[in-house]
Parts: sequence; structure tokens; C-alpha cells
Amino acid sequence: MKTLPPETDLLRSFERLFATRRRDVRVGVGDDAAVLAAPSSLAVCTDALVEGEDFTAAADPYLVGRKAMNVNLSDLAAMGATPLHALLTLGLPRETPVAWLDAFLEGFRSAAREHAVAIVGGDLTAARERFASVTVLGRVPDEGPLRRGGGGPGDELWVSGTLGAAAAGLSLVLRGYRRDREGKVTAPRGRRVSPARRDEIARLLRHQLDPRPMVDLGRALAEGGIASAAIDLSDGFARDLHRLCRASGTGAVVETSTLPVDSGLPALPELPTSPRDLALFGGEDYGLLFTVPPERLGAMKKIAARFAVRRVGRLDGTSKVLLAEGGAFTPLADRGFDHFAGPAG
Amino acid sequence: MKTLPPETDLLRSFERLFATRRRDVRVGVGDDAAVLAAPSSLAVCTDALVEGEDFTAAADPYLVGRKAMNVNLSDLAAMGATPLHALLTLGLPRETPVAWLDAFLEGFRSAAREHAVAIVGGDLTAARERFASVTVLGRVPDEGPLRRGGGGPGDELWVSGTLGAAAAGLSLVLRGYRRDREGKVTAPRGRRVSPARRDEIARLLRHQLDPRPMVDLGRALAEGGIASAAIDLSDGFARDLHRLCRASGTGAVVETSTLPVDSGLPALPELPTSPRDLALFGGEDYGLLFTVPPERLGAMKKIAARFAVRRVGRLDGTSKVLLAEGGAFTPLADRGFDHFAGPAG
Repeated sequence: MKTLPPETDLLRSFERLFATRRRDVRVGVGDDAAVLAAPSSLAVCTDALVEGEDFTAAADPYLVGRKAMNVNLSDLAAMGATPLHALLTLGLPRETPVAWLDAFLEGFRSAAREHAVAIVGGDLTAARERFASVTVLGRVPDEGPLRRGGGGPGDELWVSGTLGAAAAGLSLVLRGYRRDREGKVTAPRGRRVSPARRDEIARLLRHQLDPRPMVDLGRALAEGGIASAAIDLSDGFARDLHRLCRASGTGAVVETSTLPVDSGLPALPELPTSPRDLALFGGEDYGLLFTVPPERLGAMKKIAARFAVRRVGRLDGTSKVLLAEGGAFTPLADRGFDHFAGPAG
Repeated sequence: MKTLPPETDLLRSFERLFATRRRDVRVGVGDDAAVLAAPSSLAVCTDALVEGEDFTAAADPYLVGRKAMNVNLSDLAAMGATPLHALLTLGLPRETPVAWLDAFLEGFRSAAREHAVAIVGGDLTAARERFASVTVLGRVPDEGPLRRGGGGPGDELWVSGTLGAAAAGLSLVLRGYRRDREGKVTAPRGRRVSPARRDEIARLLRHQLDPRPMVDLGRALAEGGIASAAIDLSDGFARDLHRLCRASGTGAVVETSTLPVDSGLPALPELPTSPRDLALFGGEDYGLLFTVPPERLGAMKKIAARFAVRRVGRLDGTSKVLLAEGGAFTPLADRGFDHFAGPAG
């Protein structure tokens, strides 16, 4: 198995691999820094994936590369920004197979291509465990960025996609299920997946291993001046809703019956918790949670015709976040994924 | 010993710690992304430090924080850019003492403050080994960035500072010498440092543990239109000179007698190699290596009066990089620090 060549050879191959013809890249990979023609209002954020924390050693490196890019684009989406540029820092053990690096870069580039992102810089360093730290830059529309803190009492609360599929996918990964880039599912030793369930398991694994950032939705909400606040769902609906409410200085009431709990959850045996709790506290959905003021609901209808979005509640002037069900109200706990406590800590 | 609190508490303390009043920061730490009023020509780069590779577990975390920022500012300096903003991704084991994180952040912020850098975002993730991945953004002057590839035959070759001190400092670290933020030196067990040598050892350790980026020099060279090419000395004079020559499509002749070999090297016993070889191949000097066209030598004299810089040779139309000594020419090997081969591999 071929392991990594000298760093200088790797860096030179990066220059070829990441060459771009985009006119806003004045200096790309291969100098001490990239030089960009930047938009006047620039969004920038960073997010890292670490082996053993965010992906397993057995994960398809192509999908790890895609996810390293896409979790960052999800943050830009939550600001309503259009992705432009990315930088990649990779920490790799010396014994890493070249094939691992190649597949990672292929995946990273495929996600970049889907969103027309130019890769303009990076760093490569030896490390005992693999990690990928990514920074992305994007253009904020003239209407301004979406903020966590822009919501007000009376604004409707909306969410995109379904909830809990990525967390269910994680529980499958932790039980030994694998999925490669073509969607092929491998069951843990001693198990088989019935053909009837294979597609559904592949779909849940896809949500965990290959999440899709809601870039187009975020842009539409920002450029149309529709959303008053937004956050991406990375640490779970409950925790991220608490964050949005804290930043906005509001409370919220969520209609439990309207929550888009993923349809694949009830059929899964051996879930770590109930489908509803997985949807509320599971994390890594990477949809958008956003708020719409009453006067923008007309424009919101057009968005709802284009994207899978659902109204799930309303902000209010309290400081409480409540679940409403059949006339009864219960507090929604501020918990979710915590890197320093493990899942649902 | 107090270890890390939940991630949410840490992130909230970051919001307080990294609050900025700079008007070009429209959205700072605490949202999904920062939003900046960006300069039209933006330099951006990223560099990571990994425990066990770039710093030891026993290193003063305050100095690790400073170095994580400063190695990035050195890259901006090599472009002639003025530092503006930074993002920090930290990977930390769960059992990391809070005191370690606090000291790291204190050091990181102190380096940011020295260069008026606003910290606008970051990420915190659990990891088995500590790492800090930093991205910095800077303003490129109207005169354009300094490039590696701008040199031409006949341009003079200049270098700032001395060579080899950081590499000598590394050899001291590897032999067990320590230096804290106040400059206090601790010798390895069973050794003592004579008062006469203490200051000199502290200085060499400082070059390794707390390098200073040549931001003002880089700016002056770019804004004055003085340098035709520049690179920062991170992987050693020889390797970085080869890079500059390759990018510029030139060769070079270095006058060996003019090389600013650090004056502290000859007195050190147990150096891993000769002072000259340490200066040529040692790495982490973080000075600037740059070229000046003949017609700019007048302006260069003013720079030389303000900064510790030295002329060490000349670019030529060959593709060879040679050392000249007493009328004899020998090839300068293209080797230096390689993350995937170890020092001087």
C-alpha cells in the first residue's frame, strides 16, 4: 500500500489539482497566501472534522471529503451567503495511504464543484489522527445576512427537510453499517439487510455521511428579505432553536404534531431513543431553522412551493421554549450534540 | 485539575472573549458565520500547529497560542498584506485542563492584539491530540501583492533577520530545554545552564517557540513597490529559495560569506549539524526572503536602514541554485523541513 510522498510533492500536486480559472482568484494555491477579489460584504466561517469524533476510520474518504466541505457550506447557507472560496487544512498520519488522500480530495472537490466553490489555499501537516479543518468564504447579498438574532415575537418558525434522519444514520454507523459513495450498504458482520429495507437504510446513512447544505434556500430567504432569523441545524433542533431564541431575545412554541420527524425512523429497530427525541435532540440534520415575520408570509408561500419546508411553530415574547401538544405545554430541553460530552449529552 | 466544560459554555465564553468593536466586523463570533466589510483585494491563508509535530505536550500553551497566530501572519507578511481578521479551530482532548485552554487563548489574543487582528470566528472540537488550525485574512495594498514568482535575472536576493536560530532552538527543545512566556529557561534534568549562557539559550528558544512575523517589512516592501518577489522562511532558507526560484523561473547564486548565520550557533555544543547547515536547512526562521530589481536599490537602502536585512546573492537566468565561496560554486540542495519526513529530510 503506497503511503504519502514527501510534502513538497504533495503541495505541488495540490497546485495542479486546485488550479482555477475564476477571475476573482488573483493568486490561487501555491503562494504564501491566496489573493481574492472579495465582495464588499464577506461571510467567513470554519468547521473541522476529526477522525473518531466526526467520522470513523472505516468511513469512505470520498464522503468525508464531501462532508468536510458541506458542513461549512451549511453555515454559509444559514447566513444567506453564496459560497465563493475555500481553504483546506489536512492533518494526516505519515502512514496514510495515498488512495485515502486521493479519495478525500476527490470528494472535497466534488462538493466544491456542485456549489462553484474555488479552492484557494490550504495546509498539509502530519498528525497522529486524521482531521480536516476547512474555511469557506461567501458573498452576503445586498439585503444583508440572515442572523440568529433577527427574530421577533409573532414570527413564524419554519424548518427545512426532515428531522432525525442523520442521527438515525449515526446509530446505524455506530452499529457497523457502512455506505460507500455509490450508495452500496454493507451490514455489520452476522447481519443481513433485507432488500425491502436496503434503500431506506441507505437513505438514512446518506443523511449522516453525505449531508447536503441548503445553500439555495438560504440565498432565497436572504435575497427575498423573507426570513428574519436563521440557523443551520447542526447540533439538533432543540439546541439550535434555543440558540436562535436566545440570540433573538424571544421564546418559542413548537407544535409537536407539525414536526417533520423523518418517516424512516419509526420502522428502525434498536433506535437509541424514540423517533421524536431523535428528531428533537439528534443533530447533524443540516437543514435550516428560520423565522418569517407575518408580513412576509405571502413571499414565503413561493419559497414553500420550491423547497421542502414546514411551519412548526411561532416565536413569542417569553423566554421559554415549549412543545405544544393537544393543548398541553412542556418545556423543550436545551440539549443536543456536545463535542465534549458525547451525543445527546 | 478542572477539565473542559460543555461545548456550549465554551462557545459562549468565546463570544465574550472575542468581542470586537472594529467597524469592519459586521457580525463577529457567535453566529453561523462572521460578516466582514472586506477590502477589494483580500489575502487569505491557513496554517495549523499539531501537538507532537509542531509543539511538545510540555510547551507553554500561551506560546503555542502566539505561534499559531504568528506563523499565519508570517504568510501574510510574505504577500505584503496587512493582517485584518482571523478564525481559529481548536481540537482538544476532553481531559484538557481549562488552564491550558485559557493560556492558549491568552497567547493567541496577545499576538492578534499586537497586529490589530480581530478574531471573528472559530470552531471547537474534541480530538485525541491537540491541534490549532488558523485562517487569517489581510488587505493587499494597491501596489499589488508580493509573489513568489515575480523575481527576474539580475534581481538582488535579500533576507531578513538571522538564519538557524529557530532550528537551534528546536534542538534545545528536543534535548529537554524549556522556556516560558517570561523567558525563564529550564534545563533538562541533570543539567544546569551557566548564567553566562542563559540569555543566549533563552534567545534561541524564543526564536523557536515565539517567532515574530515580519509584517511591517512585508508591507513596506509591497507598498513601496520595492520587492519583485518574496517568500517567508518557514521550511528553511534552501528549500524556500528553491521555491522562489522555481516560481520565478530563475536560478540564484548565494554568497556563502554573506549569509547571516545566527551568532549564537557556533557556541552551542551538541548541534545536530554545522551552524552553516542549520542556517541553510533548519527552517522556522520566519524571516522574509525577497528580491529587489536593480532599479529599486535606492528605495531599498531606506528599508535597510529601518529593518535588519542583508543582501545575500542574486538571481540569474540559469535554473541552478548555487553557493559561491572563494570563487568556487557548489549546488545548494533543495531540502529542508518536511512534515512527512521529519526535520531536514
